[in-house]
Amino acid sequence: MGDLIRVAHLLADAARPATLEHFRSTGLEADNKRPADFDPVTEGDRAAERAMRDVLAAERPDDAIIGEEYGTKEGTSGLTWVLDPIDGTRGYLSGTPTWGVLIAAGPQSGPVVGIIDQPYIGERFIGAPNHATVTGPHGTGALRTRAARPLSQSILFTTFPEVGSDAERAAFDAVADQAQLVRYGCDCYAYALLAAGQIDLVIEAGLNSYDIQAPIAVIQAAGGIVTDWDGNPVHNGGRVIAAANRDIHQQAMEILRSKMR
Amino acid sequence: MGDLIRVAHLLADAARPATLEHFRSTGLEADNKRPADFDPVTEGDRAAERAMRDVLAAERPDDAIIGEEYGTKEGTSGLTWVLDPIDGTRGYLSGTPTWGVLIAAGPQSGPVVGIIDQPYIGERFIGAPNHATVTGPHGTGALRTRAARPLSQSILFTTFPEVGSDAERAAFDAVADQAQLVRYGCDCYAYALLAAGQIDLVIEAGLNSYDIQAPIAVIQAAGGIVTDWDGNPVHNGGRVIAAANRDIHQQAMEILRSKMR
Repeated sequence: MGDLIRVAHLLADAARPATLEHFRSTGLEADNKRPADFDPVTEGDRAAERAMRDVLAAERPDDAIIGEEYGTKEGTSGLTWVLDPIDGTRGYLSGTPTWGVLIAAGPQSGPVVGIIDQPYIGERFIGAPNHATVTGPHGTGALRTRAARPLSQSILFTTFPEVGSDAERAAFDAVADQAQLVRYGCDCYAYALLAAGQIDLVIEAGLNSYDIQAPIAVIQAAGGIVTDWDGNPVHNGGRVIAAANRDIHQQAMEILRSKMR
Repeated sequence: MGDLIRVAHLLADAARPATLEHFRSTGLEADNKRPADFDPVTEGDRAAERAMRDVLAAERPDDAIIGEEYGTKEGTSGLTWVLDPIDGTRGYLSGTPTWGVLIAAGPQSGPVVGIIDQPYIGERFIGAPNHATVTGPHGTGALRTRAARPLSQSILFTTFPEVGSDAERAAFDAVADQAQLVRYGCDCYAYALLAAGQIDLVIEAGLNSYDIQAPIAVIQAAGGIVTDWDGNPVHNGGRVIAAANRDIHQQAMEILRSKMR
């Protein structure tokens, strides 16, 4: 486990300059991966994933890799690195500081080490068994999710209204109607805030494995719970509910399930 | 003008520790200013405004003050400081780094100096005549708004869907339908991104003078335009359109006006 944490930091260190070189540059352009809507990818995404793959080739050549931009590399060790070089490319394109580099590693059964890194702020959230910390501009601290509180006093985040089907949106709205505060559009940073004990719930749909594996590892290490909307493992993607504790996970999941029936 | 810039920095310096003391603290609680909905204020808001008023009492005792939390203080100099100690208290409560301290100064006709300060990132956007810069974790640079581009290639920000009447929302949506990318919920940070040349438009409604005066000064100094939805001065609040240049201001305003008729 120690070596996985060491290499995860090396990957995040390698991605930082690659993403920052292009962030807020005037020449940054987006290519559209799905012309039907707007699913942008930039040279920042590609450069950061290449930099991380170079580190893995040197440090962990027998491990498998799943990356958003360059696909799957088979491995022989039974361990897979799951990389999203820039989660929140739309935020990255807009100059906001809430995109992040997502790094996870684990066996088929799910991630055991995860990093959410925000290069512009210089803030890194890491989770592994018995290890959950954030290091940022004001020092290092432990990550610990919030204690239980009623849904009516909770803070809920999502990237909706941009993601999800009409039915998924209606289910989300049913939870949102009962929360105290709902915020939109923070991409992976919302999961970091959940791990840091700042918010209670993140609910999303249509995620890929590389969107959610790092948040799973960080949030679980900080005491939270991440499942699909039926309570099952979600490290292969889908509809996600991430919760600070078992109570609020149960409350929110019951509402989602009643609406999706 | 030099003294106004000097004092504006002193105010932002004073607000930083006052806001950071409470930011992401586990004991942070919100009081609700408007029980009908959720209009939170925290000890961070109050402490930051008190710290700024103390600076003004010592440095500029003859100037007037309008502050979100402590109201209006009359002056005799003809100059007014307009303070929002935490713009984006909902983001502040949630731990996101996109709230800001807003500081503006000017005569009745509108602000001439403005600061948007983000204490957690350590990032300060300042605008005054012939003076528009950002200083952040990666150094200092000039602020310059974007050159004209078609609305179909533009990035639009707002705090909608949370603010505005149904009619205002419909008018906003008509512009949003034509933009390439729409992002929600960045509070004052959206105006900073506009000044920094990252995005093209911010459209909002129901703003107060203390929400918009600092953005006006910063964006105008960076080459942009801020008016109400009819093209009139908006430093006393209302419906705001902030644009990177005259072309896109005109395109967006025409759509808003056609919908609000």
